[in-house]
Amino acid sequence: MPKVDLAAIEQTNRTGYPPEHAGAVAGRWVRRLGPATGLSDFGVSHVVLKPGAASSQRHWHEDEDEFVVMLSGEAVLVEEGGRTPLHAGDMASFPKGDPNGHHLVNESGEDCVFLAVGRVPLGDAHYPDIDMQWVGGSYRRRNGSGF
Amino acid sequence: MPKVDLAAIEQTNRTGYPPEHAGAVAGRWVRRLGPATGLSDFGVSHVVLKPGAASSQRHWHEDEDEFVVMLSGEAVLVEEGGRTPLHAGDMASFPKGDPNGHHLVNESGEDCVFLAVGRVPLGDAHYPDIDMQWVGGSYRRRNGSGF
Repeated sequence: MPKVDLAAIEQTNRTGYPPEHAGAVAGRWVRRLGPATGLSDFGVSHVVLKPGAASSQRHWHEDEDEFVVMLSGEAVLVEEGGRTPLHAGDMASFPKGDPNGHHLVNESGEDCVFLAVGRVPLGDAHYPDIDMQWVGGSYRRRNGSGF
Repeated sequence: MPKVDLAAIEQTNRTGYPPEHAGAVAGRWVRRLGPATGLSDFGVSHVVLKPGAASSQRHWHEDEDEFVVMLSGEAVLVEEGGRTPLHAGDMASFPKGDPNGHHLVNESGEDCVFLAVGRVPLGDAHYPDIDMQWVGGSYRRRNGSGF
């Protein structure tokens, strides 16, 4: 059955962020549809953001294209260029290597839902708002120290 | 601006199908969001199906994962296992190499809209309902003759 059965797929709010940066994504509930449905060319995450939650810390990837489409509710896309509300059917693209840190934040009082498409990043990622970067396979402060 | 501006992206009903198999997709209007927004890791097509139109001839790919999410309206997912109505928010995955020919058909009286995610297929594709296959870079009949 190709139709995705969301209820059969684990939903988790786990994060690999160090504890001091993890609070922003505590209300981010993710289902990883790619592995669950047999896809390997790319990943698709089904994400529910609770009120107040962010999709990630604001970041950009050196080597991973990202694409999001809103399914329900409202989120604010925050990036270098400003703030843009997104509603059901709205989409956004984040080409790899573009140093435009971005994330979605649910500033509403209701859950919002979106899909995020990407591939496993192999290179580094940058977080302009906090003292953290993903370098050589681990999170590091800008001075190179670990968490 | 990461938000996708659909109105700025060309919409086309072009098809590479041979004329005798092209009628089914004449009402399929596609915007290719990947190239238009700077993505290269994967492709995202925004597709409007007019009443009566199909997303493609029913097919499966040897080497390309595909994923669809409905944004509005209703389509019927037709595959070997049967027929499944899809509505806004419904999703389906088609892992590469699974010989389960599939397509979406708009059997309603209104437009429907979906996104399709995939990568450029390098290998062959199979069309179980018609005398056509994609082999070695071109459409061929099962006896190997061209169109």
